[in-house]
Amino acid sequence: MKYTNEYYLQKAEQNTPPLFYSTAQAEKTVRIEEDSNAFFGYAATPAGAPPEVVRTGDSFVLDFERHCVGRLSFRVWDDGRYIDAPVRLKLKFGEVPYEIARDHSTYHGSLCPSWLTEEIINVDMIGTVSLPRRYSFRYLEVTVVATPRPTRLSEFTVVCETSADESKLTPLPAGTDSQLVEIDRVAAATLRDCMQSAYEDGPKRDRRLWSGDLYLQALTDQVLFDNSMLARRCLYLFAACEEENRYLPGCLYQYPTLSFDYEMDISDYAMLFCTALADYYAHTKDAETAKDLFPVVKRQMQISIDSMDENGVITPPKSWNGGFIDWAPKLQHITPVQGVMLYALHRLIPLAEALGETETATLWKQSAARATKAAQTVLFSKEKDAFVNAYDQYQYSVQAQTWMILGGVIGGEDGKRVLTKALQSADSVKPVTPYMNHYLVAAMLELGMKDEALAHIKGYWGEMVKHGADTFWEVFVKGQPDVSPYNDVSMHSFCHAWSCSASYFIRKYFLA
Amino acid sequence: MKYTNEYYLQKAEQNTPPLFYSTAQAEKTVRIEEDSNAFFGYAATPAGAPPEVVRTGDSFVLDFERHCVGRLSFRVWDDGRYIDAPVRLKLKFGEVPYEIARDHSTYHGSLCPSWLTEEIINVDMIGTVSLPRRYSFRYLEVTVVATPRPTRLSEFTVVCETSADESKLTPLPAGTDSQLVEIDRVAAATLRDCMQSAYEDGPKRDRRLWSGDLYLQALTDQVLFDNSMLARRCLYLFAACEEENRYLPGCLYQYPTLSFDYEMDISDYAMLFCTALADYYAHTKDAETAKDLFPVVKRQMQISIDSMDENGVITPPKSWNGGFIDWAPKLQHITPVQGVMLYALHRLIPLAEALGETETATLWKQSAARATKAAQTVLFSKEKDAFVNAYDQYQYSVQAQTWMILGGVIGGEDGKRVLTKALQSADSVKPVTPYMNHYLVAAMLELGMKDEALAHIKGYWGEMVKHGADTFWEVFVKGQPDVSPYNDVSMHSFCHAWSCSASYFIRKYFLA
Repeated sequence: MKYTNEYYLQKAEQNTPPLFYSTAQAEKTVRIEEDSNAFFGYAATPAGAPPEVVRTGDSFVLDFERHCVGRLSFRVWDDGRYIDAPVRLKLKFGEVPYEIARDHSTYHGSLCPSWLTEEIINVDMIGTVSLPRRYSFRYLEVTVVATPRPTRLSEFTVVCETSADESKLTPLPAGTDSQLVEIDRVAAATLRDCMQSAYEDGPKRDRRLWSGDLYLQALTDQVLFDNSMLARRCLYLFAACEEENRYLPGCLYQYPTLSFDYEMDISDYAMLFCTALADYYAHTKDAETAKDLFPVVKRQMQISIDSMDENGVITPPKSWNGGFIDWAPKLQHITPVQGVMLYALHRLIPLAEALGETETATLWKQSAARATKAAQTVLFSKEKDAFVNAYDQYQYSVQAQTWMILGGVIGGEDGKRVLTKALQSADSVKPVTPYMNHYLVAAMLELGMKDEALAHIKGYWGEMVKHGADTFWEVFVKGQPDVSPYNDVSMHSFCHAWSCSASYFIRKYFLA
Repeated sequence: MKYTNEYYLQKAEQNTPPLFYSTAQAEKTVRIEEDSNAFFGYAATPAGAPPEVVRTGDSFVLDFERHCVGRLSFRVWDDGRYIDAPVRLKLKFGEVPYEIARDHSTYHGSLCPSWLTEEIINVDMIGTVSLPRRYSFRYLEVTVVATPRPTRLSEFTVVCETSADESKLTPLPAGTDSQLVEIDRVAAATLRDCMQSAYEDGPKRDRRLWSGDLYLQALTDQVLFDNSMLARRCLYLFAACEEENRYLPGCLYQYPTLSFDYEMDISDYAMLFCTALADYYAHTKDAETAKDLFPVVKRQMQISIDSMDENGVITPPKSWNGGFIDWAPKLQHITPVQGVMLYALHRLIPLAEALGETETATLWKQSAARATKAAQTVLFSKEKDAFVNAYDQYQYSVQAQTWMILGGVIGGEDGKRVLTKALQSADSVKPVTPYMNHYLVAAMLELGMKDEALAHIKGYWGEMVKHGADTFWEVFVKGQPDVSPYNDVSMHSFCHAWSCSASYFIRKYFLA
């Protein structure tokens, strides 16, 4: 049964990592108030210890003083020994103060409102109440909907869960830029809280594994917790979802059984899954896993190669929206996806060679040469001095320049020039997500623009830290708190896997 | 440690009865609509099978076609293999259609609104959802608050729980009046669903044991399921709550540990607890238990005896509201409570004699004589030809006449006359609860008014059956659906222990 979906699933199951548990108890409350200086318009200010006794209508906001992913419990009691009637509580969870302040009834976003985390619970008996669901939050608003008499609520506790072994996290060397130390701390917390039985993309909402996020998480994990078992599991999980002649699903669900959305095959994500195997092998030298998964990677890349048109431009088949690349509105994907293919091929060729897959290595080299030529000719506009989408209105984007640099199509001073111009141009589409900002920084570093890369890390991830981020957010555009792919900021995940890679750069390039 | 509270508690625990489980699955839905013929103004009409697929905003009412006390489970699934976002459901439970129709936000009653049974739940994963709480209901309104896409909900199932062994229930003899068969069926269902690890008074709301309800439940259980283990447990539970020189608490809570409300010592309830032991012994001849509990009964009765004033009228100390007797508004308790004391003494004297407690039997006889004389003189108004509250405005009530008859103060033609007059008088306070109606029927039977008793059973319990009762209600006054001790009918329990005793009368006095 080797190399069947069942085989891959079995290997994935064998690599389920243990979880580590830690406890956070809420000792303090906060008041969530409008604050024009706060990025999302609301700030939390200390409001003392939790109330000793609560009555119907009372409400308070607990601060767990860290981002938690885990199960909540608390104690309900009173001075008697029983409850005369159930105590009905409303619990509203927030990763950031804004989510607590926001009235959920005004939600108008595109995703299902059931992601807005709240519960109404009825407690029949005094004692410890343990909620079965896993939550992702720092703030907890408790509202006493009804209690028959004054009641005590206490010992609000979260047992936090992660597959990250925090004891493996090495401190940054003395003398490291203090802002970078802060950014690294928040990035590590972000990755930690997304590391569960898979690299989740955001524990608040999607508890699923996206291949694009996996790519950045596994890479960053190499310099933080180094959980190669988890990376291995995730690679096998995707392999277990392969269907003939289709890109791997962009995301998958582990529970109750492994499954995925058939409409979510995303070309760039599928190719970054392949790249993740190359990175995994480069880091671990685990040839057994690499050989196990190489057939999948080979078939996946072949889909892209086969989809190159007569010009040598990738035209992905049946792909979700043609690719993902970034949440930037109206971004066209064809040019950046060409860069992703080249980026993947250049990283996969050494893997093929290391595994003795010379025929494949040769084919990939030829494909890369053809795709590079197409990029340099068909997708490059001399007039604009930029990579554009020659297939549709010549869209100009930072994303396209970035991926062409990462794909090795352009480099050196030429690369610096096209990237810098695109960043400065008023006409170009700009990166929106931390995910795309990762590749932008990677491109700068590829070009040797170390100062610019550092400035961007500080100006982007550093800016979120300044705005009080405990973990990095799914979406962040400086000065534009309303930018939302879902048309409502309250739906955002504020601990999002693809935002964790600042640590990768800091620990790889900017240590003292 | 014999005869300590701990000893009684241990005996109670040893007598915890096993539970019997049965399954009810909802195959049908109903529409709940206004109906001026329905007692509470709303009726359920068949509305076909449950929907196959539901969307956000959908709502349907399941009919389990019987009154259920138990745990609910159901299956959530769709044509895919995962849920994209949690499915948020609102579940509203009703014992009667009115509770489903009633908007809980308009509740204005005196008890805590958390008793109005509803849940909002979030389902993270396809599969079977099992709710941990126990519910009491026949109708379940399911509202889809939010689902990311069309979802299937199916297999709504209740695992019903009871400590009643239904196999012990003997069918009524062929030829029994068909209306009585129906009344008996509903009464048996009422008792069955109140029989849990104790005789609960109403499984919807108070899941506690009241001594007044215990008295009627244990009596009726003798002719239905005959669970003397349960009766024994309940007697021991109350004994375990005895405090020096105080009436037993009127009600107690079994979980998480045995406890009770200190402000709930009710004189008539405490004396009926004593009577329950006499009935238990008369039925079981279990001298061991009777001897175990006799010291408690003796002390409890002594509190009443000691509280008789110079006239021989009981003036209960520190008692909750002076007694309970009935929910009839402004009912004064002093006269009927005198009757309760006499009723208890007359039943306890044979118990004392059987147990060889002759000194106590003598004391009780003397006390009964003194109390009887007081009742006949001080509490009887020759002018009104009725027992009245001579201590406060001479209140005239059916309750007072009833209890004086049951207490043996008056009988024969005199008894018939005062009772009939009180029932027909426009001035007298009338019974409100099924609980008080039980004693009224008992008084009629005591007087040999068998036809009147039968007519009352048919006209009272039979009327609830005509109004579609699956189980008998906590409060029922013909033609007055709004009568409520809690100022809001939606708070009522519609499966209430103290309403089950119609079966006692039917099976004891009216078999074919």
